[in-house]
Amino acid sequence: MDNKKDKERRETNEIFIGSKPFMKYVIATIMQLEKNGSAIIKARGKFISRGVDVAEVVKKRVKEKDGTDLSQGIIIGTDAFKNEEEKQINVSTIDISLNRN
Amino acid sequence: MDNKKDKERRETNEIFIGSKPFMKYVIATIMQLEKNGSAIIKARGKFISRGVDVAEVVKKRVKEKDGTDLSQGIIIGTDAFKNEEEKQINVSTIDISLNRN
Repeated sequence: MDNKKDKERRETNEIFIGSKPFMKYVIATIMQLEKNGSAIIKARGKFISRGVDVAEVVKKRVKEKDGTDLSQGIIIGTDAFKNEEEKQINVSTIDISLNRN
Repeated sequence: MDNKKDKERRETNEIFIGSKPFMKYVIATIMQLEKNGSAIIKARGKFISRGVDVAEVVKKRVKEKDGTDLSQGIIIGTDAFKNEEEKQINVSTIDISLNRN
């Protein structure tokens, strides 16, 4: 049971960066921080730059709003998969964890 | 004197990511690692995704070549400057330090 709860919590505090309007991701991240005290911004490939932008704007807004410096952890990695032609594709990934301490 | 040496060393082990062919940055980073034991991949704005790709490919190549797992440190930040119309522009930055330990 606990395991399931942990999983749900983990899943809900992840923000996946795509091509929706920029501020949607900023607001979603701030809402997760309010709710869970933590949020993980996840991005792949060309969206990595955008993920960093979201994290930077969130940190600035939270600092301005209530003076909190969010702590952060950053992991980069590679996802390997096969495309339709069975060719191996590597795509870089970034996970930026933000926490209220 | 020492200060000057430190500065030179720091400057020379930085790789700035731009729009040159991708493998140029990979090779430059691997050469810095051979020479100094460390390299810092620096990228701004839309080049951040590319900087992460370079770091990931370098780590993979070094691992394949001599089995070394490079240690890494990642810093993200914001550079603020004024454009030609005196408008404040913020651009996200990433510094990825790679070290042979």
